[in-house]
Amino acid sequence: MKSTKTADGFLVRCEIGDEVVSALTRFAAEMGIHSGTIMGIGALKDPELGFYDIHTRTYIRRKFEGDYELVGLSGNFALLDENIILHCHAAFSDTEFRVIGGHLFSAGVAVTGEFYIRPGGTEIKRAPDPVTGLNLIKN
Amino acid sequence: MKSTKTADGFLVRCEIGDEVVSALTRFAAEMGIHSGTIMGIGALKDPELGFYDIHTRTYIRRKFEGDYELVGLSGNFALLDENIILHCHAAFSDTEFRVIGGHLFSAGVAVTGEFYIRPGGTEIKRAPDPVTGLNLIKN
Amino acid sequence: MKSTKTADGFLVRCEIGDEVVSALTRFAAEMGIHSGTIMGIGALKDPELGFYDIHTRTYIRRKFEGDYELVGLSGNFALLDENIILHCHAAFSDTEFRVIGGHLFSAGVAVTGEFYIRPGGTEIKRAPDPVTGLNLIKN
Repeated sequence: MKSTKTADGFLVRCEIGDEVVSALTRFAAEMGIHSGTIMGIGALKDPELGFYDIHTRTYIRRKFEGDYELVGLSGNFALLDENIILHCHAAFSDTEFRVIGGHLFSAGVAVTGEFYIRPGGTEIKRAPDPVTGLNLIKN
Repeated sequence: MKSTKTADGFLVRCEIGDEVVSALTRFAAEMGIHSGTIMGIGALKDPELGFYDIHTRTYIRRKFEGDYELVGLSGNFALLDENIILHCHAAFSDTEFRVIGGHLFSAGVAVTGEFYIRPGGTEIKRAPDPVTGLNLIKN
Repeated sequence: MKSTKTADGFLVRCEIGDEVVSALTRFAAEMGIHSGTIMGIGALKDPELGFYDIHTRTYIRRKFEGDYELVGLSGNFALLDENIILHCHAAFSDTEFRVIGGHLFSAGVAVTGEFYIRPGGTEIKRAPDPVTGLNLIKN
C-alpha cells in the first residue's frame, strides 16, 4: 500500500498482496481520519460480500472467488469507541461484464486498487443500534 | 433524518420511515444547496427506478419491492426555477448479490442511508431541453 | 461539452455527439488537471467496456450497442509522461434495470452526461508496471 497527500485528502494505492478493507482501515487509523468519504476503482479478487437481513439481524455473506473489475467502491469512515470503522459497499464486474455487489467485507488485489479518501474534518461516531442490530452513525 | 456539518459539506443519515429522495431534497432546500454532489451507501427498500426512453420521451418506471443493499448512490443538485432538484442514480443488490440500477425516483429505508453532500458553491440551473424532453443543466 | 467552475472543481456536461472519455480527458488537459477524481451520472450509448485479464495481459473488450442509464462513473486523473490519463470505471443499466459494468474505454451520449471533477492539487504519475503490464500510479 502506498499513499500520496492531495489537496483535500489522500490517494491510496493498494497492491497485489493487500487486503483492501483492512489496509484502508489501517491507513485511516494511522492518519487519524475520523470521518469522511472514500471512492475507488481497480481490479480486485475474491471479494467477500454481504447483504444485511434485518429480520434475522445477520449478514448473508458470500465470497466470490476469482478476479473482478472493481466498478466502484463507495464508503465512509467513523469511530466505534476508539476504533476507526470503514463502512464500504462495492460493485464488481466479471469477464462477461455482469455486475455483483453489496457490503464489502474484504477483497484482495488482482491488479491494483486506486482510492481517494477525503477526511470529513470532524468526529463521526457509531454505536450499537437496538432497532436494526447494527453499529449505526449516531451524530 | 439527521445531519452533521463536515469540513466540506454534510453527512446526512436517513432512517427507517424516511423516503430518501424527498428527504435529501428537502434537506438541500433548507440548507440552500444550489449545486454540488451527493454520494451514499446503505440498505434501502422498495426503490422505484427509471430508464429514460428518448424516443418516447418518457421514463420506463418500475418499483422493486423488498429490501436491497444500496451499493452506491451518485447524484447532483441543481435549481429548476426556484426549486432544488436532486438528480440521482443508484445501484442496488439483493440476497444473491445481483445488481439492479437506474435513475432513482424514490426509495424507503430498510436499515439506514448514509449520504455525504458536498455543496458546489455556485448556482447551477436546469431548464426544459427541447431536444431530449428533460430538464437539463444549462450552465 | 460545457463546463462550469464550482467551489472545488468543475461541473462538466457532455451532450449528444460527444464521446465522453475523450471529451473529459481533453477538458482535463486544457485545464491542467494532473490528478483528482471524477464522478458522474447520465444516459449514455454504445459503451465499450473492458475487463483486464492479468494472465494474458490484455483487456477483454466489448461494445454494448444501445442506450443505457449511466448508473455511476468513478475515476481519477493522472499523468503518463506528459499526457493526462482519465482512468474510469462505469456501471450501466438497461430497460430491464439490469446492470453491466467495467473499465470504460468509450461511450457516446444518449441524453446527457453530468460529471463533477475535483482536481487533486498535486501531480500524480503513471508508468508502465512490469508485474501487471499496465500503466499504474507510481506516487
